[in-house]
Amino acid sequence: MALKSSDVGILAVDIYVPPTCVQQESLETYDGASKGKYTIGLGQDCMSFCSEVEDVISMSLTVVSSLLEKYNVDPKQIGRLEVGSETVIDKSKSIKSFLMRIFEECGNTDIEGVDSTNACYGGTAALFNCVNWVESSSWDGRYGLVVCTDSAVYAEGPARPTGGAAAVAMLIGPKAPIVFESKYRGTHMSHVYDFYKPDLASEYPVVDGKLSQTCYLMALDLCYKRFCSKFEKFEGKEFSLSAADYVVFHSPYNKLVQKSFARLYFNDFIRNCSSVNEEAKVKLEPFSSLSADESYHSRDLEKVSQLVAKNLYEEKVQPSTLLPKQVGNMYTASIYAALISVLHNKHVSLNGQRILMFSYGSGLTSSMFSLKVNDRQHPFSLLNIVTVLDIQHKLESRHVVAPEKFVETLKLMEHRYGAKDFVTGGDASLLPQGSFYLTHVDDLYRRFYDRKPLAIANGH
Amino acid sequence: MALKSSDVGILAVDIYVPPTCVQQESLETYDGASKGKYTIGLGQDCMSFCSEVEDVISMSLTVVSSLLEKYNVDPKQIGRLEVGSETVIDKSKSIKSFLMRIFEECGNTDIEGVDSTNACYGGTAALFNCVNWVESSSWDGRYGLVVCTDSAVYAEGPARPTGGAAAVAMLIGPKAPIVFESKYRGTHMSHVYDFYKPDLASEYPVVDGKLSQTCYLMALDLCYKRFCSKFEKFEGKEFSLSAADYVVFHSPYNKLVQKSFARLYFNDFIRNCSSVNEEAKVKLEPFSSLSADESYHSRDLEKVSQLVAKNLYEEKVQPSTLLPKQVGNMYTASIYAALISVLHNKHVSLNGQRILMFSYGSGLTSSMFSLKVNDRQHPFSLLNIVTVLDIQHKLESRHVVAPEKFVETLKLMEHRYGAKDFVTGGDASLLPQGSFYLTHVDDLYRRFYDRKPLAIANGH
Repeated sequence: MALKSSDVGILAVDIYVPPTCVQQESLETYDGASKGKYTIGLGQDCMSFCSEVEDVISMSLTVVSSLLEKYNVDPKQIGRLEVGSETVIDKSKSIKSFLMRIFEECGNTDIEGVDSTNACYGGTAALFNCVNWVESSSWDGRYGLVVCTDSAVYAEGPARPTGGAAAVAMLIGPKAPIVFESKYRGTHMSHVYDFYKPDLASEYPVVDGKLSQTCYLMALDLCYKRFCSKFEKFEGKEFSLSAADYVVFHSPYNKLVQKSFARLYFNDFIRNCSSVNEEAKVKLEPFSSLSADESYHSRDLEKVSQLVAKNLYEEKVQPSTLLPKQVGNMYTASIYAALISVLHNKHVSLNGQRILMFSYGSGLTSSMFSLKVNDRQHPFSLLNIVTVLDIQHKLESRHVVAPEKFVETLKLMEHRYGAKDFVTGGDASLLPQGSFYLTHVDDLYRRFYDRKPLAIANGH
Repeated sequence: MALKSSDVGILAVDIYVPPTCVQQESLETYDGASKGKYTIGLGQDCMSFCSEVEDVISMSLTVVSSLLEKYNVDPKQIGRLEVGSETVIDKSKSIKSFLMRIFEECGNTDIEGVDSTNACYGGTAALFNCVNWVESSSWDGRYGLVVCTDSAVYAEGPARPTGGAAAVAMLIGPKAPIVFESKYRGTHMSHVYDFYKPDLASEYPVVDGKLSQTCYLMALDLCYKRFCSKFEKFEGKEFSLSAADYVVFHSPYNKLVQKSFARLYFNDFIRNCSSVNEEAKVKLEPFSSLSADESYHSRDLEKVSQLVAKNLYEEKVQPSTLLPKQVGNMYTASIYAALISVLHNKHVSLNGQRILMFSYGSGLTSSMFSLKVNDRQHPFSLLNIVTVLDIQHKLESRHVVAPEKFVETLKLMEHRYGAKDFVTGGDASLLPQGSFYLTHVDDLYRRFYDRKPLAIANGH
């Protein structure tokens, strides 16, 4: 009678990106920043943000409905639904409970799972939990669904251009085209104050940018070491970057991803991996005696390691950077938007390949894990996944607004955060068909959402 | 090479209860409430609350340290740590990350898991996740640890006497004395606003008491139906209350637990279970034609069903009510404090018995599940678990304070909630030895905790 589940992983994935965005180049000018500070210094192109009718609940209602409809999944087939988010609208009632309206309409309330919380890592925690559920004795044979939804906004100042917003939904089950290699997971967790949200009345975080970057790189080193050690224990052979076809990072801004990949390459050099070429060895040799702490702060090492890893970066990392560079930091959704970028760019040649993932959440929590691609039949074929995602169209149909409009929206949202008894403009004209949007919040803080009609086929 | 895990469940459990409490009887007088309103109307005896040096972080640091030390578990043996809580101190940084200091000191940072959030259900979600992990392919052979920690406080008014505070820690692994019967789980989740925390700057919830009670009872009905149906599918025989030796409920206040058990008995009557005796059938017959909605609001049904279920309540439920009545609502910890009460009261005769559990979190999320007791060798024997818990001593060594002191503390905590740059009185004299306590919060909202020395053996 026991259900058997093998090749558990991601069967399908969809993403919702707010249709309003601001160009980083125009933001540089508006902020009076030096030219290239955001575009080259941070490595970012564009930043999506929620308008006054959108929030993490509307975005996740939209992306869940979209995934179910596009894959023709009956809401009754979902047995678990979990949300990862760090954007708090209510401190007790989960975002998952808001999503139940979609399933209640179809008579399905038998759906386990709540929200997982720790900064940008919550989505990964939800995903691990969902995969474990499918592999556990409590699995009832139905699909799991994982949602990552966040709106990243910052107070005026240097962190503001590192915002973004999106929601990702992933359908989880056995016989997946994107399979978890769960045995090799490397995790590092620690108590630090690099980025946190202790000012409860404000949507903005407290950030120590320099500390957060060092924490990220230290966590990366430790997770990679543990991942390699577990891989080598189970497989009996060396792991290095040459065993990963793509490397996908949580991406607060692209520059950190560039540094991170170079850091992994430096790790391979220190571990004396056969995959590091002679030229690189010569160039990295002067840094081999640095202490770990020195190595995090050496600008020379940063420069040289990025240089020697440049070709590999283009090959293994660049395909993942499309959405993070175009949309900005999506917190919990960031790493999965990067994974979607790889699917979008490389689906033709992805079968049989391994994708190495690094998930980081400040505070801090981090894991490195790997996925193996094993293409399946329609509707869970890579081709169909990419067709449904329709990334090019999603990016091209966005509305670029002036920095003034962006700043004005954030000001309005500051007043609306945690507020009650207001009505939104209700203007959903810029939103894609089928999008949910906020109409009003009543005097008991209860939030009400409407849905924009779906497109009717054949031009009606 | 695959690890095999069977009989996964709770190996050990510990609880921390703040040592300061107020008698419900004296609170009635202070509030000018009618005599018996809190003690009989709510069914509560006493309420523990956090003093100014305690919070959900200090309580969980204390209970985790205590469990590890008393069971002589090396912190390196923990591979997963998850927290369930609805008491938000930071909206991004998890409580789990605060607990990492205990493990970092021993050089173990390879510990998965974050915080699970949905009102009082977060601990159950964390527990399910942890059990699933042990049964999954990502399990690495180490123990899991689940922490439920909450401080329940309400604004002045009718809900205030339904507060409470505690932290529970549970060690999870295979070959457990308290085993999950995961196949029979019944779940019901729905989008409602019965109790929520939308006022982000306040620690107090928005509560619709009447709606919340109806939601609780409806969820109970649905979970029980689903549980019975799954049990009957897998076991091929009828499930009724006679198949459960104890029934443990999430307990906001004891009166609701009394109503809930009577409601389950009424369910057995409607389902025509052979276990319902003839006398009860005759008395319940007049209510058999009520619609579901009518039945939730019939005071006559409530009265009659409690009467006919009274003996069974004494036998199957009363042993679980000790801590919930003495400590108050502990939110995520409530149901596990009730489970601990059963262990405390019945450990001598518990071997081989089944405990039915009902977990509820407003918003809403709910599950019914069952545990089977299978006594083990020391240190995971029922006798040792109960000895370590030392419930009688914990309750008797509390300090009963006057209602004025309770109200004064809550007023101070209102100012401290979400605040920065303050120093506590630092008075840990009332706390048990080995307790963690808050010393100060700096101007960047960073929180600092000290630990009171442990008792030194043999009177030194």
